[in-house]
Amino acid sequence: MKNCIIASTSTIHGSQPLEYLQETLVELYNNCDEILFIPYARPGGISHDEYTIGINNIFKKINKKIVSIHMFDNPNEAFGNVQGIYTGGGNTFLLVDQLYRNQVIESLRKAIQSGIPYLGTSAGSNICGLTMQTTNDMPIVYPSSFKTLGLVPFNINPHYLDPDPKSTHKGETRETRIKEFHRLNPQPVIGLREGSWLEVKHEEIILKGSLSARIFEQNKAPYEIDPGTSLSQLN
Amino acid sequence: MKNCIIASTSTIHGSQPLEYLQETLVELYNNCDEILFIPYARPGGISHDEYTIGINNIFKKINKKIVSIHMFDNPNEAFGNVQGIYTGGGNTFLLVDQLYRNQVIESLRKAIQSGIPYLGTSAGSNICGLTMQTTNDMPIVYPSSFKTLGLVPFNINPHYLDPDPKSTHKGETRETRIKEFHRLNPQPVIGLREGSWLEVKHEEIILKGSLSARIFEQNKAPYEIDPGTSLSQLN
Repeated sequence: MKNCIIASTSTIHGSQPLEYLQETLVELYNNCDEILFIPYARPGGISHDEYTIGINNIFKKINKKIVSIHMFDNPNEAFGNVQGIYTGGGNTFLLVDQLYRNQVIESLRKAIQSGIPYLGTSAGSNICGLTMQTTNDMPIVYPSSFKTLGLVPFNINPHYLDPDPKSTHKGETRETRIKEFHRLNPQPVIGLREGSWLEVKHEEIILKGSLSARIFEQNKAPYEIDPGTSLSQLN
Repeated sequence: MKNCIIASTSTIHGSQPLEYLQETLVELYNNCDEILFIPYARPGGISHDEYTIGINNIFKKINKKIVSIHMFDNPNEAFGNVQGIYTGGGNTFLLVDQLYRNQVIESLRKAIQSGIPYLGTSAGSNICGLTMQTTNDMPIVYPSSFKTLGLVPFNINPHYLDPDPKSTHKGETRETRIKEFHRLNPQPVIGLREGSWLEVKHEEIILKGSLSARIFEQNKAPYEIDPGTSLSQLN
């Protein structure tokens, strides 16, 4: 019964936040007046309030009201009559830490699995995978687990970046990092470039947007898939 | 009694591994015939054996023999008559996980604090800070703690990269990531560019190499320091 948009980024170059997804969100949140916002990842360390105000201004454009989970005394109550959910980007370690610390990870999973429309961007997409272990973020906090929602049977690498052939930098490329991940972990990883998203409807997972995505499977050369490709068999 | 070289990277562009540090290492390991190598970070997921063979070939050039900690049945025995230590780069999560799992973190700390010459590069430098929480690496494994050796009273960000003003990518810059770190953690962070290293002698910490380094302190604008600057007061 899932109905999710799992996006690489909230914002693409030269465009306002979520602007490139506007039509998709109108469709996703068709039956919702109010969206539950999860601001725990706090980009750049801004406050939950600041983050929520910014998101509220964006959702006004599609006539949706935002309520934020941080406004509830008991955050689990936020899921009582929830109509739609959006988890924004920022730091994935912080997001996962807060989901566990506030004991809402099960409520969130159950709501999404019951068919509540869900949008994740960046860190909010990372948590849709089996684990958060292919995040690009800095471990600014120690979460009680790296396990995440498992809404798709693989891991996600948002903001996927191709190696720069002209680079003189000796830090690992994204591809090298994911290769290291596969020395210790079996699940496939999808490198989602900025502007790409996954549409999850029931058990069907489709790559959307105009760009190809890069798939990494253990003991296999990475390969590209085109928009429109089904990923339902990737596990 | 510390005697350490904490380097941003093992390798700089256009040069062989450790070549740019050769004179420094001849001086550091002046009284050592044999160097204990810690290969736990395993760059690119290569085996401990492969990693050790490569390092052995490099250290031959300065007439040092390499023994690797992974060759000992009880890794703590490696510290019995240790003369010098080198921890190489790779994945910091894996390195820290292995140091805790093999219960050698205290032996390593004691050896270095007793004056055994130590070289760290990349992940091997990250662990010299208070915590590993300013690593750039992917969390491919869940270590039992993020706490590291605390040989210097701050955190280290190796392979420091300046923001690219021409970039259209929406992933966080290194500076943004460190700013997020400071919303939750008080200690200063030194961004060490590739080619820079810290020389630690007793309690004196000096920036070496030809490049400036970038210092991040909580609630303060980041600033640059020149080579030769003492960091002993940074905490």
